[in-house]
Amino acid sequence: MDAKEKFMKKAIELSIENVKQGGGPFGAVIVKDGEIIATGTNRVTPGCDPTAHAEVNAIREAARRSGSFDLSGCEIYTSCEPCPMCLGAIYWARLSKLYYANNKADAQDAGFDDSFIYKEIALPPSERRLPSECLLRDEALQAFRDWKEKDDKVRY
Amino acid sequence: MDAKEKFMKKAIELSIENVKQGGGPFGAVIVKDGEIIATGTNRVTPGCDPTAHAEVNAIREAARRSGSFDLSGCEIYTSCEPCPMCLGAIYWARLSKLYYANNKADAQDAGFDDSFIYKEIALPPSERRLPSECLLRDEALQAFRDWKEKDDKVRY
Repeated sequence: MDAKEKFMKKAIELSIENVKQGGGPFGAVIVKDGEIIATGTNRVTPGCDPTAHAEVNAIREAARRSGSFDLSGCEIYTSCEPCPMCLGAIYWARLSKLYYANNKADAQDAGFDDSFIYKEIALPPSERRLPSECLLRDEALQAFRDWKEKDDKVRY
Repeated sequence: MDAKEKFMKKAIELSIENVKQGGGPFGAVIVKDGEIIATGTNRVTPGCDPTAHAEVNAIREAARRSGSFDLSGCEIYTSCEPCPMCLGAIYWARLSKLYYANNKADAQDAGFDDSFIYKEIALPPSERRLPSECLLRDEALQAFRDWKEKDDKVRY
């Protein structure tokens, strides 16, 4: 068994065990230099946290442990293709590669909204199911002006 | 000043104050029945957490306080149009309405990758900048089979 399969088997094992533990059927591991540095499972319902997907939890743990918001050079192995929230988190964390097992159609078939959210996010705001409204943009731009002028800011 | 403007002004105030506090130029508030039930600011760099955007933090706090992963009936006011990660979180939390001030072009102009991530997420995996690979799907499907068969699962 090669290293990639070993790491994915661990993510799958976490996903199966997590169902028994009252969570959703999702698991993820983050690997750096051939070692697992963090794991995560879906704890949305037991933890009352809609953002507690396996990938988000693994990314938060990896960043905390490594003391950096930047996980460049790390790879994520997830038991299911990431939803848009998790894929966004993967980009923000700058993970270098994504391995997934189940796909978003499998997730939809199991009752999860991933495919719906992918379709919504690709639409202009006015065409989404979620109503949205822009207001006070001129006032809000002040924060960006302050940010641009700040000399000691940490960019990311 | 109407209620919508009052809530947005609060989100903007948080975004401006957060720059002074070493965070990113983003703030958000969540409102239920005309009252603010949670606030959030961007703490990515000071907290070493790439997922700690203002909207995610506000959603996590609102869910924890209300004891539910389901924030139906709540509205979010955010100082900037949500990135795909945060928009995904808004869908998963089932927030009923989104108000935003700055837009994603303003965010890009201030040095944030929101527009790039929107473009990437809309592409098929094989065309994204992020390399990805599917493996062991047959093994991973076991978690979904277990989930479907579980009688006492909490759906979301």
